[in-house]
Amino acid sequence: MTALNSHESWMRRALELAARGEGAVEPNPMVGAVVVRDGVCVGEGYHQRYGGPHAEVHALRAAGEFARGATLYVTLEPCCHFGKTPPCTDAVLQSGIAEVIVAMPDPFPAVAGGGLDILRREGLRVVTGVCRPEAERLNSPYLKRLRTGHPYVIAKWAMTLDGKLAAHTGHSQWISGPESRAMVHHLRGRVDGILVGLGTLLADDPHLVARPASADESPLRIATRIVLTRSGNLPPTAKLLSTIDDAPILILTAVTPDEQPALRVWQTAGAGIVTLPQLTIANALTELGNRRMTNLLVEGGSEILGAFFDAQAIDEVMVFIAPKLVGGRSAPTPIAGTGQPRIPELASLQAVRIDRLGDDCCVRGIISPP
Amino acid sequence: MTALNSHESWMRRALELAARGEGAVEPNPMVGAVVVRDGVCVGEGYHQRYGGPHAEVHALRAAGEFARGATLYVTLEPCCHFGKTPPCTDAVLQSGIAEVIVAMPDPFPAVAGGGLDILRREGLRVVTGVCRPEAERLNSPYLKRLRTGHPYVIAKWAMTLDGKLAAHTGHSQWISGPESRAMVHHLRGRVDGILVGLGTLLADDPHLVARPASADESPLRIATRIVLTRSGNLPPTAKLLSTIDDAPILILTAVTPDEQPALRVWQTAGAGIVTLPQLTIANALTELGNRRMTNLLVEGGSEILGAFFDAQAIDEVMVFIAPKLVGGRSAPTPIAGTGQPRIPELASLQAVRIDRLGDDCCVRGIISPP
Repeated sequence: MTALNSHESWMRRALELAARGEGAVEPNPMVGAVVVRDGVCVGEGYHQRYGGPHAEVHALRAAGEFARGATLYVTLEPCCHFGKTPPCTDAVLQSGIAEVIVAMPDPFPAVAGGGLDILRREGLRVVTGVCRPEAERLNSPYLKRLRTGHPYVIAKWAMTLDGKLAAHTGHSQWISGPESRAMVHHLRGRVDGILVGLGTLLADDPHLVARPASADESPLRIATRIVLTRSGNLPPTAKLLSTIDDAPILILTAVTPDEQPALRVWQTAGAGIVTLPQLTIANALTELGNRRMTNLLVEGGSEILGAFFDAQAIDEVMVFIAPKLVGGRSAPTPIAGTGQPRIPELASLQAVRIDRLGDDCCVRGIISPP
Repeated sequence: MTALNSHESWMRRALELAARGEGAVEPNPMVGAVVVRDGVCVGEGYHQRYGGPHAEVHALRAAGEFARGATLYVTLEPCCHFGKTPPCTDAVLQSGIAEVIVAMPDPFPAVAGGGLDILRREGLRVVTGVCRPEAERLNSPYLKRLRTGHPYVIAKWAMTLDGKLAAHTGHSQWISGPESRAMVHHLRGRVDGILVGLGTLLADDPHLVARPASADESPLRIATRIVLTRSGNLPPTAKLLSTIDDAPILILTAVTPDEQPALRVWQTAGAGIVTLPQLTIANALTELGNRRMTNLLVEGGSEILGAFFDAQAIDEVMVFIAPKLVGGRSAPTPIAGTGQPRIPELASLQAVRIDRLGDDCCVRGIISPP
């Protein structure tokens, strides 16, 4: 038991390190590594940015000669293929590491157990499965895309305390306070795509760009701004279009620019147009997954969130609740669509987190796969 | 400044004591008192239950001979009339107290500054206004009823994280978890009335009685269960009616038992029927205020909460938000009615309090008078 507990505590450190790569490494997984010799950490590292050295390489470099005969903890199976960098298995073997403890195998087709096989064949002791649930949770977006071809979907909305996205007139600015909006900008700065429906485009004329509160919080990546619209009847005066130099635009629609002149205007201005004759949520997600998007932020409105909910396509929610009341039976609700016939007996969300941001309340959680 | 700060710190202690009477003293105000001599507390007390001795009497009894030449801090002007008990001004004068510090005058017509006048005339030093905002907030239900004739209205609802009171089918049990429901039962046990609309009666068939989690948390008072229904078309099989021995029932309606046979059934079974030909929220509140109700809990549903909100008749809200999603554009929203045309620029709630109860979130706050 002592050995196992010690394994877990080093692996938790590796997971902490791995999480520092969030937003910077995708579509790669987040990975952290720790080199331990005689119960002492002699090197640690994590995958810091897409295309850069992997976690193992950082940790082994830090350990240098101390790696010889040591134990390597790594949150994901070391790779055994040439990608952007040489195989990590080579680096592990050269380092003289005697034992490798991993949280989980890498299901990426070019690895998929092959890395561990090589290490075992070369005589290293290999243990897998230490802190596997935590490692799976950390990389659930990466794992989901490998498993389903779809990006991980984070649904985000801000609502009044009486559950409205807007007044019955459509007026919606601003529901949440500055602290909540700062958190949204941080989130926008780490995802690959930000999706809204045509209704939100018309009602709010949003910009959908991460605006950091300060210069040293610059976004980790520039998310593509995505509009899902069956008709493609987009307004030519949208702020989205006038700010096309700020971030790419992608229109997912059921019609072609030949059929819908509004689409031609957007196409000419530089927006990408994808015509999906079967415009379902699943097909839209497949398209975005094929574009190597790992994290998709769905910002609304009501009908789009309803469509994602009805399609069981939401993986995580982040809800900002402002201490404001607006009332109105026809004011839009956060999740429209058909909805479920019964209040679920169990919580829809796992790992519920509740934070106070100014006078707003932020509730987050993960939706378990059905 | 030292003296003032010291005044405030003793008055805060008196306010803490006063708050212990919540739920037990209404329709009287909550009052706390502290006797201080040479910077030391020599006696304290609070109004513990309706009809019992006032705070000053408890505190002066505790101080005994030490009251002579001392300072009395009291959160509300001492009374000078015979009510359920003799005038507190007599007790103060007999005690030998030299100085009386009060947070605010008592607007009750038989007092209204008269108590302070008597004390001044008898040569005591009198200071008013210490911690007045806190004292006004503590007794806002008492003060509202004196000022307007209406009870203080607490709107309470439990909703899903996507802002629904129920599924689109009407199914609503249970949204909130056991910790939240325990808090609701505590609240029900300290108010004078619990009001719902006919829609809620039909959809949920509620009991509306405080069920404490344990025997030593027994309700402080038995609230009257109130149904607001224009038509008076009440079901004869309601749980409310079959449990009439648990707590009184009052029906506020626009018709008479002669016009609506369903009302006769309820009347015969023991429910009180009040016919208000002009059945507005304001008229309903006047009726309840005349019945000496200080605190009214409005538990829904959607349309009733909307009517109270549109009438600007809500003083405080307590909202339980469960980590559940149900979706549905036709699922009921917490506050229906007409609603406001714009999201308020400022928060609707003051003194916002956010608590985690299990995985639920409870948001409370006070609505400032317009």
